[in-house]
Amino acid sequence: MPVRDVGILGTGLVGASIGLGLRSGGARVTGWDPDPDVLHQAIDRGAVDIAASDEAAVLAAAGDLLVIGAPPAATCDLVGRLDHGQLTMDVAGVKAPVVEANTMPRFVGTHPMAGREVAGPAAASAVLFRGAAWVVVTDGASEGDLAAVGGVVTSLGARPVLTTAAEHDQAVAVVSHLPQLVAAALVATAGETEGSIDLAAGSFRDLTRVAASDPALWVDLLRTNRVAVTAALASLQAVLGEMTDALSGSDEMLAAMLSRSRAVRRGLTARAATVRVALADQPGELAKVGHALQVVAVDVRDIQLRHAPHGGGGVLTVSVRPGDADTLSRALSDEGLLIVD
Amino acid sequence: MPVRDVGILGTGLVGASIGLGLRSGGARVTGWDPDPDVLHQAIDRGAVDIAASDEAAVLAAAGDLLVIGAPPAATCDLVGRLDHGQLTMDVAGVKAPVVEANTMPRFVGTHPMAGREVAGPAAASAVLFRGAAWVVVTDGASEGDLAAVGGVVTSLGARPVLTTAAEHDQAVAVVSHLPQLVAAALVATAGETEGSIDLAAGSFRDLTRVAASDPALWVDLLRTNRVAVTAALASLQAVLGEMTDALSGSDEMLAAMLSRSRAVRRGLTARAATVRVALADQPGELAKVGHALQVVAVDVRDIQLRHAPHGGGGVLTVSVRPGDADTLSRALSDEGLLIVD
Repeated sequence: MPVRDVGILGTGLVGASIGLGLRSGGARVTGWDPDPDVLHQAIDRGAVDIAASDEAAVLAAAGDLLVIGAPPAATCDLVGRLDHGQLTMDVAGVKAPVVEANTMPRFVGTHPMAGREVAGPAAASAVLFRGAAWVVVTDGASEGDLAAVGGVVTSLGARPVLTTAAEHDQAVAVVSHLPQLVAAALVATAGETEGSIDLAAGSFRDLTRVAASDPALWVDLLRTNRVAVTAALASLQAVLGEMTDALSGSDEMLAAMLSRSRAVRRGLTARAATVRVALADQPGELAKVGHALQVVAVDVRDIQLRHAPHGGGGVLTVSVRPGDADTLSRALSDEGLLIVD
Repeated sequence: MPVRDVGILGTGLVGASIGLGLRSGGARVTGWDPDPDVLHQAIDRGAVDIAASDEAAVLAAAGDLLVIGAPPAATCDLVGRLDHGQLTMDVAGVKAPVVEANTMPRFVGTHPMAGREVAGPAAASAVLFRGAAWVVVTDGASEGDLAAVGGVVTSLGARPVLTTAAEHDQAVAVVSHLPQLVAAALVATAGETEGSIDLAAGSFRDLTRVAASDPALWVDLLRTNRVAVTAALASLQAVLGEMTDALSGSDEMLAAMLSRSRAVRRGLTARAATVRVALADQPGELAKVGHALQVVAVDVRDIQLRHAPHGGGGVLTVSVRPGDADTLSRALSDEGLLIVD
């Protein structure tokens, strides 16, 4: 059953992308954002039909579905004070504090595992969620409402993943919040060692890129999820302690630790195949890659080009579905590019 | 004074790239590698003029310069037992143990800060080092030999950075070896938390990509540099301890820590400007980017495209020189692509 009358509170990247997706399915979307610029951008982007004048006007228009597209702390505040009897879902990155704060009868907590390095409705897309996992939290929700939200998620091209709020929060503490803290800690450690930043190569840049993110956003996520993040930090410290011991131990001990991690990490990319191509340091090389991708029309998952620190060509890594790797390799070779192992 | 008679012991990625660069400058390169396949590939790649039958034949042919292109432990072994009176340089990623083991009269330790995600001579390039920092270690080297090696480095397009072995080893412990251990530790921690890997998003993939590297290579580097790496691990653990405290403290305390790291991390990319473009989920989008890059012919430093976990278009980030950002943005807009902040 498609949703028709939708209200969106918070029209940033995720809220606006949901608006675009549901509008393309025939819904009428009424939106509001505490930042008037963000609301205007969402309208310009085509994510919202009607700009509401306040929260109450959004609730009144949300006969089928209310979407709360706000950060964690603001979401906790909203679900604790909104008086709304219709189906409501949020998209915040922390779930237990949200479902605990909720007072609405038909609320379902969710978290789409899709985002972008950029915020705001300007980067919104109706296909942002296509193929992504979208966590739907079972705590306190009826079977009927879970099914309805699952239908919304599916209509946006995503895959509903049912779990509890606690399990979700522990998982994102490890794979999202902990990496953020570790990136910041690595940068801080390098900042203390004179001359080290000058020698930072590609791997350091990759590992610490997220340390340039907005601190306010992360303080909100980390503090809202502090119980799980603190536990994850303790687990990491224990592993780092074992590594310190292994550094003074035998080669075999250290190799075993690195090999175990390698096996887990490889499992993460098992569903994707990698094609690597050496690019010369001259214009037109990337145009050849683009042409090859256009010819074969394979579904690209990730692309990464890492140069030597200041130039000198580079190796471009393209991740595709395993079945597409040979096709892409041939197309790249046909462009005169050198495939490397 | 250009070098003419060059010997290379170890013709992997770095040794073969040096061979290509020096040959293009007129040198005659005699090479050998303990792995016959690696030597054959280096010859096929044009990195070596003459394939020597053994180490001794390389030394005999290295009248102007001997290059040792081996991993740290093998390099320590070689510099301790080779009987060679002419100018010699190595390229291993750890320096203090190498200069301590050295017994040759005219040895200069070096480390080019350029590499690739792939090893072996197949990915070698004469321009691999263009614009890169190349550490030249002063320990035990004469002014004349330092100047000669500096000339070789400059002729390969790199920028010599003079430092001591100890300072180098401390710096790479922090910006290269520590990140490797941290990536492995993050993966190990995630492996302990059921269901977390399934929710791993782009930042976790970026931060842990190096954890899929060859353990044998890293055991060599980490164990050879274990004093500096152990100190770096202790510094990191202290910072993580402060972060644990900040999680239970005030928002301001955590924000201050993240803001300090953000400022340091931003300094790392200050010399590069970033252009972001939203790509739709359809063939031909990357071809447009390639065409724009070909038209403006700017020098691209890094490129990264991160999709939503399983598709849905994405944002492509291109790093260029600050002066080139506006030109590139216009060219991308001219292709009909959407530039995002």
